[in-house]
Amino acid sequence: MSREQQVLDRIERIRRRKPVVREDRITLAHGAGGKATHTLIEAVFLEAFRNPLLAPLDDGALLRFGNERMAFTTDAFVVSPLFFPGGDIGDLAVNGTVNDLAMCGARPAHLSAGFILEEGFPIADLRRITDSMAAAASAANITVVTGDTKVVQRGKADGCYITTAGVGIVEQPVTLSASLARPGDAVIVSGPIGEHGAAIMLARDDFDIEAPIASDTAPLHGIVSELLKALPRHVRTLRDATRGGVATVLNEVARASEVAVVLREDKIPVRPEVTGVCELLGLDPLYVACEGRFVVVIDGEHAEQALDILRSHPLGADAAITGTVTADPPGLVLLRTGFGGTRVVDVLVGDPLPRIC
Amino acid sequence: MSREQQVLDRIERIRRRKPVVREDRITLAHGAGGKATHTLIEAVFLEAFRNPLLAPLDDGALLRFGNERMAFTTDAFVVSPLFFPGGDIGDLAVNGTVNDLAMCGARPAHLSAGFILEEGFPIADLRRITDSMAAAASAANITVVTGDTKVVQRGKADGCYITTAGVGIVEQPVTLSASLARPGDAVIVSGPIGEHGAAIMLARDDFDIEAPIASDTAPLHGIVSELLKALPRHVRTLRDATRGGVATVLNEVARASEVAVVLREDKIPVRPEVTGVCELLGLDPLYVACEGRFVVVIDGEHAEQALDILRSHPLGADAAITGTVTADPPGLVLLRTGFGGTRVVDVLVGDPLPRIC
Repeated sequence: MSREQQVLDRIERIRRRKPVVREDRITLAHGAGGKATHTLIEAVFLEAFRNPLLAPLDDGALLRFGNERMAFTTDAFVVSPLFFPGGDIGDLAVNGTVNDLAMCGARPAHLSAGFILEEGFPIADLRRITDSMAAAASAANITVVTGDTKVVQRGKADGCYITTAGVGIVEQPVTLSASLARPGDAVIVSGPIGEHGAAIMLARDDFDIEAPIASDTAPLHGIVSELLKALPRHVRTLRDATRGGVATVLNEVARASEVAVVLREDKIPVRPEVTGVCELLGLDPLYVACEGRFVVVIDGEHAEQALDILRSHPLGADAAITGTVTADPPGLVLLRTGFGGTRVVDVLVGDPLPRIC
Repeated sequence: MSREQQVLDRIERIRRRKPVVREDRITLAHGAGGKATHTLIEAVFLEAFRNPLLAPLDDGALLRFGNERMAFTTDAFVVSPLFFPGGDIGDLAVNGTVNDLAMCGARPAHLSAGFILEEGFPIADLRRITDSMAAAASAANITVVTGDTKVVQRGKADGCYITTAGVGIVEQPVTLSASLARPGDAVIVSGPIGEHGAAIMLARDDFDIEAPIASDTAPLHGIVSELLKALPRHVRTLRDATRGGVATVLNEVARASEVAVVLREDKIPVRPEVTGVCELLGLDPLYVACEGRFVVVIDGEHAEQALDILRSHPLGADAAITGTVTADPPGLVLLRTGFGGTRVVDVLVGDPLPRIC
């Protein structure tokens, strides 16, 4: 069955479930990446735009141009505050789209950038953001080739929103999708989780907590390229763990592949500072956004080799095999705790951290 | 000289002029498409992102993938109100990017869509917008293949903003740019101007004027394709006359090509209703946005043939040869009035019509 047919079948299965948005109005939860976002995407966007190339549960679309396989992806950025330890909306907007391309198995090539600016936004801040975008683009060896700028009246935005889109080339013979995990696969997390989300929360003045946490925002195409060059046919799924964190990514995998994912709590890489902040704020790091970490689902036999490759890259030094894929119970993510218990890691409901990216 | 080198030279010429943003903060004029927008693009965006593919004065970037020439473009849409006679933000966001691809000489292929939604936005309105996008995409024979949705708190947006990006294939051996006009060329306007802007203004409740004017939003790839198939090597410039209208497009051509554009007032296609509304509001239709009209600069010898081709298409029935390109005075647009006088059609200063698209 062709990939296009697979996508159409998946959309058809979703339509038969008849997902319904029960709210009359958009809530913050619709933007959180969890349950409400999925329902909105399925009931509104998939219903309107269904076509064989649409990438409902993946990070971008795969297109064919002549003999080339091309990936095409977009992301809107509304993070608040605009500047935070470790980065700003500019490098986030570049790295976010670079990473979505990387997760499609593509070498990022070119970016577009659409700016929505609020009347009164300081030009100096805009310069700081574009400089940061330029530096991130240069680090990722890509160019920003086209853009657009709109200005809205004071009070109709929050300083600066950026939507980037990217195109990239798929050079390896990979087939990647959240729907390709199967029993016996291993789940690798590329590094300590939750740092971006924790840094953003601390950068908001709502909490009087100080901790040495910076955003992990980073371009992942290099480390992904090493992995795919070595193991092009053994990687099933690549997903960067942004909104909703690792828990949300794995729930998408479990659901799209109709498998279970079993995590071992003691194997999840997370720094003690992040654990501490999350405990204070009543959050589970598994749901907290990263902007430079990703999840790999790979056939179990090649997991150790993949781990070695990831660990030999600076962005993967703390990578860990964190879980396995099993047949039952399909669609669920389970966590084996340090005390020998098991709990369900459910999909995210509500939005604990609005405007994290 | 290669196109890449030409672009670099042009960026270098702009840098030597050392454009300066004199304001400390973003104003609505920075989003109007006129003088302030140009200065912002040149002083901030070009300065940060300069590279040989950047399309500073054109509607998109030309990329090469294998043997294919590809166009890549983006546009942010913040129109207010979201729904207006003749269309809504949804078909505007699709047609706008379809048209930017068409102006690059490309057959539009795929679109991405990034949504920024305000908390509280009615789901029914979102459905109406996505249905309208789907219909516009279908009419343009393209697919929306990837997207993203973010939600911001109440008061941090204005219902719904959409940023689309598009990729398309350049199938004809064309070389199009605002910098390629030369003396002896003719300027064609594809249809009556100013209807989109006039419709938006009337749809705002600020004025108590009623007139039977609807937005001209339409996909232009079909009519452009007819023109380029017949005359691939004779068309110099294609530009859709959106923000800032025909006057802004022609000023960009005059400036980028270092030529003069001389318009004949009596040849500019404009409907009497639009003239009437513009008179009431103190606006010049030459500066009012269209969303389904475009300007063609073509060598003078082929202008009549081009006109016949445009007029044989429903979207070009009222096309007219409206002006000519001359050597002097370089960089200026002149209007020969009905009374035999001549005035300069200057670049737009300020923003008479904020959030027109």
